[in-house]
Amino acid sequence: IMLEENDTAGLAEFCRALYPPIAADVMDDMSVDDVFKVLSQGTPHDRAEILVYFPLPVQEEIAKCFSVELLAEIIEEMPPDDRADLLERFDKTLVENLLPLMTPAHRSDIRQLLSYPEGTAGSIMTTEYSSLPANLTVDEALKRLRKQAVDKETIYYIYITDEAQHLIGNVSLRRLLLAPEGTKLGDIIERDVISVRVNDDQEVVAREMNRYGFLAIPVVDSQNRLVGIVTHDDAADVLQEEATEDAHLAAAVAPLDDSYLDTPVMILLWKRGIWLVILLGASFLTAAVLNVFEGPTSKHSDAASLSSKGWMLLFIPLVLASGGNTGSQSATLVIRAMALDEKRGVQSSIAGLIAWKELRIGALLGLTLGSTTLVAARLLVGWQRAFVVSLTVFLVVICGTVVGGLLPVGLRKLGVDPALMSNPLIAALSDMLGVVIYYNVATLVLGG
Amino acid sequence: IMLEENDTAGLAEFCRALYPPIAADVMDDMSVDDVFKVLSQGTPHDRAEILVYFPLPVQEEIAKCFSVELLAEIIEEMPPDDRADLLERFDKTLVENLLPLMTPAHRSDIRQLLSYPEGTAGSIMTTEYSSLPANLTVDEALKRLRKQAVDKETIYYIYITDEAQHLIGNVSLRRLLLAPEGTKLGDIIERDVISVRVNDDQEVVAREMNRYGFLAIPVVDSQNRLVGIVTHDDAADVLQEEATEDAHLAAAVAPLDDSYLDTPVMILLWKRGIWLVILLGASFLTAAVLNVFEGPTSKHSDAASLSSKGWMLLFIPLVLASGGNTGSQSATLVIRAMALDEKRGVQSSIAGLIAWKELRIGALLGLTLGSTTLVAARLLVGWQRAFVVSLTVFLVVICGTVVGGLLPVGLRKLGVDPALMSNPLIAALSDMLGVVIYYNVATLVLGG
Repeated sequence: IMLEENDTAGLAEFCRALYPPIAADVMDDMSVDDVFKVLSQGTPHDRAEILVYFPLPVQEEIAKCFSVELLAEIIEEMPPDDRADLLERFDKTLVENLLPLMTPAHRSDIRQLLSYPEGTAGSIMTTEYSSLPANLTVDEALKRLRKQAVDKETIYYIYITDEAQHLIGNVSLRRLLLAPEGTKLGDIIERDVISVRVNDDQEVVAREMNRYGFLAIPVVDSQNRLVGIVTHDDAADVLQEEATEDAHLAAAVAPLDDSYLDTPVMILLWKRGIWLVILLGASFLTAAVLNVFEGPTSKHSDAASLSSKGWMLLFIPLVLASGGNTGSQSATLVIRAMALDEKRGVQSSIAGLIAWKELRIGALLGLTLGSTTLVAARLLVGWQRAFVVSLTVFLVVICGTVVGGLLPVGLRKLGVDPALMSNPLIAALSDMLGVVIYYNVATLVLGG
Repeated sequence: IMLEENDTAGLAEFCRALYPPIAADVMDDMSVDDVFKVLSQGTPHDRAEILVYFPLPVQEEIAKCFSVELLAEIIEEMPPDDRADLLERFDKTLVENLLPLMTPAHRSDIRQLLSYPEGTAGSIMTTEYSSLPANLTVDEALKRLRKQAVDKETIYYIYITDEAQHLIGNVSLRRLLLAPEGTKLGDIIERDVISVRVNDDQEVVAREMNRYGFLAIPVVDSQNRLVGIVTHDDAADVLQEEATEDAHLAAAVAPLDDSYLDTPVMILLWKRGIWLVILLGASFLTAAVLNVFEGPTSKHSDAASLSSKGWMLLFIPLVLASGGNTGSQSATLVIRAMALDEKRGVQSSIAGLIAWKELRIGALLGLTLGSTTLVAARLLVGWQRAFVVSLTVFLVVICGTVVGGLLPVGLRKLGVDPALMSNPLIAALSDMLGVVIYYNVATLVLGG
């Protein structure tokens, strides 16, 4: 509303006063252009604060609306870990244009964080930790902390390092507050600090933190020098991502970089299609095995059997597997997307989006698998029969995406937990449909 | 080692000095009796601190080794949320015996927490939050906090309530430290507090916290009175549990209360079997549909076909689905169990445990599904043929658990991510095995 009235003061106030994640939530439905217009009215600090609460692909789009100079200002205001995540998505030339516009300290910090490979502790850590020397007294430490506090990610865990940045201990702010004023830091710190290496797998780091209930865990290099901390919120994100990735892998979908809704159709097609084609290959092997068992029998008992309709049985496992596998993929993607975004999932606009996306992907997957089948089935049977199988696979795959993708959305609308719609159940439904389609296509193409 | 030498002083020191989660890790491999012996040497406080880091079923077993009096002491020392989780597992009479041994404050606190239904914010919250009235100055507030700090779950978020416990705001310890000494709390608190209701779904609460990166979120009753807080570590646990539950549901395994390794075989059998039988029912419908399509044709073209080997095709979808579904269940349970316990998963002792467990479950599931099949298949074909199908299902189900349960363990040992062994891939492998088994059993039983 303020946007329509072009109320710049109101928009600036919106950016400043609202709690940043809520501001981002409010703008969730807006177009990138509108978000850009709103953020333009905020200070670079407000822009950065709000921007980090959008999903990364959206952050990228919004960021690209700003001029390089303004973008550099925003990026300087972002927390170092979020900054590195965003910069990793930009192409090299843009990053090279941005870096000279920043302060030397930020520049070297960014270069450092960008150098850690994805999936390691280094790639999710932040460099804004609180550290103090061991020889301070408790009240000196508190004074120093008050100065540091403004731009540290957490001041609740304080790390104690020597002159060469080696990690020698840590102390919680709670313990610091409980200690008598004159106490030396060295006397109250915990020296057996649990730390992780900068190259450790991010999933292992996140599980470790979860296990101990830490707010943050220190990250050290090979010489035990403190280089950053991983905070609890980033660890929780990692566990979520890994759970999603495992769910997708379990349904034979190659891991997605972004959320289901943020991933373009063609990329989904590739990530699903590659596995479906491999599985189709396995089904052909099964068909070949069946051919060995059925072939000789029918030859001497009655050749008519395999030549009239008996040949169809060779491809039953293939037809059913195609439908079941596509259905499982759709169901897994849709159910996980809805679970991760409880709020959006119930909105009807999103249900429509999911349905439309699945239909397009289903049609494309059907074409891909159908044409592969045509060529491969030709090796075992004649063209006409291969065409029957191929057309069936095309239709069954589309049915699979519809059953797998839309049933969970429908159940959700009825208030039933869509997770009840398990993959085997979807496969069972698509099996039944598959048989009906197979025989009807055969009758239609080959005649009664 | 200390245990063998009966070094009581050493064991007491072990309980006291070691960081509790690490002490629990060290005792991970010990028998319940040995853990009991070690903990017996600690103070009630040490016992409680270490106990909460064991999985709940193990906590329960250890707890039952102690006398009611000692157990009451330990339970009083536990954090309120962990206490409630453990008490919920005890039978009613034990709880009624324990309660009179505790202080009245703990007693009413426990009764309160036990009254919230499982799965709600109330069931995961703790009552040990820091709260202060709004009329204090910053330095008075810090003094009060120092007194409260010892037994509060967190002092980093402080909640401001009026005399009737209504939540009116919150302030972070960071903000408190940054404020000038004389400031009134009322002037620096955030009044738009994001809170959740005591009856809210725990998953929604956990996602909310994750989204905002909170350390804790206040829980209020219907009159907006503060009744507890949910802390970040418990929220992370909830998200993990929900992800596991969804993964299990996706593979048609009814949700488990405990981890895979802690769940007895008979319970797993039930949680898997119930779904497999439902799915078997669906496969029979497919067989019936196939019978309709194939039946009439073979009657007029050549009756010999369906009576010799053509009848076998009716049950191909059923045989393949049984193997595939059981395999998917096994793979999902095993892969998720390994992902949640990275450390244990690589130990060969656990691999052996998993293998042995899956084999037993596979045999039992095979018996269940095989006998169900025998009865149901009799409706479509004769006894001898029904027996072929039934025996095949029995064998295929066992193969499914072996392929699904052991391949991921094997891949893990080879250093390959077991998650790559997707359910459709396992189904494809078990399809091939299924066809081979089916035809061999038929030849064996019915003769060439």
